[in-house]
Amino acid sequence: MSVTTPAGFRAAGVASGIKESGRPDVALVVNDGPRSAAAARVTRNRIKAAPVLWTEQVARGGRIGAVVLNSGNANACTGPDGFADVHHTAELVGDLLGIGAADVAVCSTGIIGVRLPTDRLFAGIRAAHAALDPDGGPAAAEAIMTTDTVPKQVARTASSGWRLGGMAKGAGMLAPELATMLVVLTTDADLEPHVLDAALGAATAVTFERLDTDGCLSTNDTVVLLASGASGVRPEPEEFTAVLVDACADLAHQLAADAEGAGKLITVEVRGAASEPDAVQVARAVARSNLVKCAIGGGDPNWGRILAAIGTTTARFEPDGIDVAINGVQVCRRSAIGEDRAKVDLSGRDVTITIELHAGAATARLLTTDLTAAYVHENSAYST
Amino acid sequence: MSVTTPAGFRAAGVASGIKESGRPDVALVVNDGPRSAAAARVTRNRIKAAPVLWTEQVARGGRIGAVVLNSGNANACTGPDGFADVHHTAELVGDLLGIGAADVAVCSTGIIGVRLPTDRLFAGIRAAHAALDPDGGPAAAEAIMTTDTVPKQVARTASSGWRLGGMAKGAGMLAPELATMLVVLTTDADLEPHVLDAALGAATAVTFERLDTDGCLSTNDTVVLLASGASGVRPEPEEFTAVLVDACADLAHQLAADAEGAGKLITVEVRGAASEPDAVQVARAVARSNLVKCAIGGGDPNWGRILAAIGTTTARFEPDGIDVAINGVQVCRRSAIGEDRAKVDLSGRDVTITIELHAGAATARLLTTDLTAAYVHENSAYST
Repeated sequence: MSVTTPAGFRAAGVASGIKESGRPDVALVVNDGPRSAAAARVTRNRIKAAPVLWTEQVARGGRIGAVVLNSGNANACTGPDGFADVHHTAELVGDLLGIGAADVAVCSTGIIGVRLPTDRLFAGIRAAHAALDPDGGPAAAEAIMTTDTVPKQVARTASSGWRLGGMAKGAGMLAPELATMLVVLTTDADLEPHVLDAALGAATAVTFERLDTDGCLSTNDTVVLLASGASGVRPEPEEFTAVLVDACADLAHQLAADAEGAGKLITVEVRGAASEPDAVQVARAVARSNLVKCAIGGGDPNWGRILAAIGTTTARFEPDGIDVAINGVQVCRRSAIGEDRAKVDLSGRDVTITIELHAGAATARLLTTDLTAAYVHENSAYST
Repeated sequence: MSVTTPAGFRAAGVASGIKESGRPDVALVVNDGPRSAAAARVTRNRIKAAPVLWTEQVARGGRIGAVVLNSGNANACTGPDGFADVHHTAELVGDLLGIGAADVAVCSTGIIGVRLPTDRLFAGIRAAHAALDPDGGPAAAEAIMTTDTVPKQVARTASSGWRLGGMAKGAGMLAPELATMLVVLTTDADLEPHVLDAALGAATAVTFERLDTDGCLSTNDTVVLLASGASGVRPEPEEFTAVLVDACADLAHQLAADAEGAGKLITVEVRGAASEPDAVQVARAVARSNLVKCAIGGGDPNWGRILAAIGTTTARFEPDGIDVAINGVQVCRRSAIGEDRAKVDLSGRDVTITIELHAGAATARLLTTDLTAAYVHENSAYST
């Protein structure tokens, strides 16, 4: 159940010393083919880390032979020198594998504004190359962890025989930096880059883009999808997309469940919206309200804060026509007092907030977490 | 130094029992004239509390004879019944003062989604009416406090003899509800409603609207400006606006300084923006970043998080051309590593983040606070 579950992939994870703790921090995922079709999605943050700028270019060619990832240093806000470091990293990986540097995707996560210790990284890459293994997926998943408490992996096998694997890190806060999310997905389905790209766009839109633990967009978020074609199966795009969405949703859920400092996993479900963008806007406003997140963390079914968050959006609705249920109890009816809020049971880890806008038929679901003192402690630690 | 500093005003503050603590919770501010020109600004939240809907209508007439305020209950999300409660409140105040209900502004702050205990409120209003006093400003300022630790008041005397007074509450979190901000400003200058309205719009735009402690927009925010004309002086609009801006900035600073759970008072200053809206957008993105706020709270001059927040905006700038200084130390130059961040002294209460976009000549300044475990505790307490 990893990136090496599909045929045609090898991976490795090693400790290079970038992390002071001595834990694994360099991962390598190699596509041995026969094909090397690929697609990627990167952060929409305009301040993009050097590896993000690089990988964006690489993915444009629709072909990626390997992904090298490091944790412990984000190589973000490091200027032209930082970009040169990425270039050298890709060249080294390319040389070791006998492919072009332009076919190597690079991902980094960790502290911002500090140069990569390239001596350690390059030694780590050589070690990872030597350790490449068809069962190396779990080691790679471990090497991209920062403050994640568990590695996040997924695998699916289609009835027609092709497979999909994946690993992810992040969504909880990194200590001491951003909630960078890195995801590598692999498949042995035989698909063209444009099919992979469309499927990945469809999948990220309803999974990773519907995960919002603290509204803070990282400089390094990257999702890479590699297809080896080694199964010899060419599934229909619809079939492939459906499996990809399912796998990405699984990883997104794992990310939210491990979000640092979070005590509760909150699903915000918006119904009756005039459009899907409206539904997402409303869900995001609620998911980003510190007051709502504090209340849920404290076991308080405070629907007034939910309405106040909805009221800040431009979505279509009548201000006096909104229903809100928390864990199934209709605490707010037509924007006013509904069932007794004391009936709401918030003792469990999972909380569902259901919002009915009565403005149409569109829906959206978004995952978030509560806001806790642990989150604050985690993210107020001095970064050096 | 209160709303009764200008001539022509009386005020009172009493305890009616709406607050279980028995602390003062009903305030009345009366304009004895000779004029009763007025202007108001209310929250842009589309879910507006009943008193906000009422006061918005009242202010449209350009004339307000009295403002009645209660703390302990926001009368928000209370449906048509809640609106009827406001109407009856204004009628009672109007009857007691011999003016029309349509000349009475009503403000409420406290818990959302619970009907006002009107029996207590009405008894409190009668007591406040009996207690009206030309020196009653401080008592009124105390009666609108919720979890404010100190009353917030201001007064200015113009060289031409007219005066301005004001009181405010909020911006820290209410226990258990929203950070409602209520402000009443009084003046004995003799000005027409349209002049007051323009001045109030100009003043709120650069003061209260540049205060953002947690990004959560209340359903009840209201700012009311009353002019008695009792000084007989008719200042130039420019002179009046300048004094009003200064007084509002003073109150906004008092609000931020008393924000609950906050350890640091952060000024975000954006320079070199292509436009003022660009500057405000960048300042707000930084002020709303939980990661930035946690870092500052922890004494960590984490400029990478500031850049990441800037990168989420649509403001005009080159991604590799941003400078950031924290308390005067240029930690980030051209979006990359600048001076050693260890030089930044964050031991004091006041922190200034200065951002240079190199995209024009516009500037903006915004006040915010850090994010602390105390904020979370304060806002996760069960609301009943």
